[in-house]
Amino acid sequence: MPPQRATLLQVAQRAGVSRSTASFVLAGRHQDMRISEDARQRVLRAAQELDYRPNLMARSLRTKVTKTIALVSDTIASDPYAGRAIHGSLAAAVAHGHLLLIGETDGDPVVEERLISDFLDRQVDAFLYASMFTRYVRLPKKLRGRPVVLLNCLTKEAEPSHHSIIPDELAAGLTAARALLEAGHRQGIYLVGHPGGGVFASRERLAGIKEGLGEAGVRLAGVVDCDWWPDSAYDAVSGAIGDGLDPRALICINDRVALGTYQALREAGVAIPDDISVISFDDSELAAWLRPQLTSIALPHYELGWRAVETLLGPAAPPAVTRLPMPIRRRHSVTKPPVE
Amino acid sequence: MPPQRATLLQVAQRAGVSRSTASFVLAGRHQDMRISEDARQRVLRAAQELDYRPNLMARSLRTKVTKTIALVSDTIASDPYAGRAIHGSLAAAVAHGHLLLIGETDGDPVVEERLISDFLDRQVDAFLYASMFTRYVRLPKKLRGRPVVLLNCLTKEAEPSHHSIIPDELAAGLTAARALLEAGHRQGIYLVGHPGGGVFASRERLAGIKEGLGEAGVRLAGVVDCDWWPDSAYDAVSGAIGDGLDPRALICINDRVALGTYQALREAGVAIPDDISVISFDDSELAAWLRPQLTSIALPHYELGWRAVETLLGPAAPPAVTRLPMPIRRRHSVTKPPVE
Repeated sequence: MPPQRATLLQVAQRAGVSRSTASFVLAGRHQDMRISEDARQRVLRAAQELDYRPNLMARSLRTKVTKTIALVSDTIASDPYAGRAIHGSLAAAVAHGHLLLIGETDGDPVVEERLISDFLDRQVDAFLYASMFTRYVRLPKKLRGRPVVLLNCLTKEAEPSHHSIIPDELAAGLTAARALLEAGHRQGIYLVGHPGGGVFASRERLAGIKEGLGEAGVRLAGVVDCDWWPDSAYDAVSGAIGDGLDPRALICINDRVALGTYQALREAGVAIPDDISVISFDDSELAAWLRPQLTSIALPHYELGWRAVETLLGPAAPPAVTRLPMPIRRRHSVTKPPVE
Repeated sequence: MPPQRATLLQVAQRAGVSRSTASFVLAGRHQDMRISEDARQRVLRAAQELDYRPNLMARSLRTKVTKTIALVSDTIASDPYAGRAIHGSLAAAVAHGHLLLIGETDGDPVVEERLISDFLDRQVDAFLYASMFTRYVRLPKKLRGRPVVLLNCLTKEAEPSHHSIIPDELAAGLTAARALLEAGHRQGIYLVGHPGGGVFASRERLAGIKEGLGEAGVRLAGVVDCDWWPDSAYDAVSGAIGDGLDPRALICINDRVALGTYQALREAGVAIPDDISVISFDDSELAAWLRPQLTSIALPHYELGWRAVETLLGPAAPPAVTRLPMPIRRRHSVTKPPVE
């Protein structure tokens, strides 16, 4: 059994004061209640000696402040990198003296509703509603009208009712295009990935790439179509090269796709970056592990979590979508195009 | 502002009963207190119509049961795979109708003490004390004597005072050795990793490997010394092969080391698995992404988290260290040795 908690009465008895005197002292109301400095000191010393913990839960019933944030997410573990959003949220919550409760719904709306009810029963003050990949969501009914910040997701409302913190994927596409343009690339630039509009990040990255290239009058030469995984990228790039495709630069839709692309290029005897430049998105751990190390545009997961908590606890402001920058991590996979 | 919570008084007024009658009905004490079935039905209907939530926090003050577990960990995000331990803990907590609070200390004992105090102030029932890699720990003073299960860590006490759930790293070493023996390997088997005793997993894996090989009268031929990262493994394996080392099988201490090993072998023109077999530990995502896919012995992080919660909530039993099996994931990096 846990050690017995020291009671307010025990503190009062040790200090030689009444229970209510001890209570007023510990609530900081000694001036208010005209309690002598001597009595106050005795109460504080007794509380310290007995390791007395003011019962925050009882206090929260009086003050209606529990200082607890709940993070409701679809799934944490599906994407290891997204765990950093949790890490950033935790760090910011601790820095602001709040606790963070985490609940995972696995995308099941019934579990989600129950979870939110549970949190409400525990008088959670405020919520982060988080998605492990950037997407449009409908805010659950039970959260509407409450203090909520959307973390890595947003609603389709024209006038958002809550803050959203998402990565600036459009600007990331621009950054990738400009990095290749700066290196001197003008032609033979292909996307490796799926151009379909279903995935928010994919759609915005592609739009940014086209816009960035377009600024210099350059066109995306084409798309090597694959899904988000290494083996699919390996098959697609191997197939395209076998069919005679001869790109100068590949923009991979994420680092996993870049891994499969590296494997296909190596087998085809194509050298990175001398024969072909490769740039990617996410800046997962993998990027620094590939040989040559991969230039990648970072998902700011940690910052998303941190900023979401700061927004939740900060001064009220009109709800808006905040897009956080995705910084480029320049490594060794991009260089000037080969001399023709 | 959140919608106002319906009060017990409002429920009572709507039902046309006294506040205490409503309270007794909602606490299930209607028989006890001889409350009429008619009054009971009116109270229940009013509670439903007003979406009344019994205040669990207030109830917990009476019953001393908050149904909340706290997970105190050194760091969640340092190792993405370890996030699965959180996932397993969450899933088991939800399955048992508990909430899980998560707090991260970043290994700082001052932060840890404050965090545990915060949790105690919120009358957390029980704790998981978690480490993101398997190691010996000293249980914080404030947790001693409380319901605690150690997740992925253990104490050095001869008679443990709490349950520990850890992966069976020793058996994993045996499994790796036996997999190579079964494929026909008898000589030229090297470890790629650091043989020093500092890291629990490393020490136990090596002991298991030696024991497993020893059962067949086979000796570990040597160690290619490197730390836990791909670039270090790449340098070490490249150097060793440059110095004339000619192994038949490499046991990599983890998948990251295997990635660096793959890169070095490929550059040296050594084919996996025809020229050399490679086996590894962790079964991270990487293992399935390498070409050829890597046979690896899985860290059961999800199961560790799940089992830790089950142990915490299950019937009392004498404290012990439970070692969970690490299953082998057979892929394409191990085959019979080349004909000499």
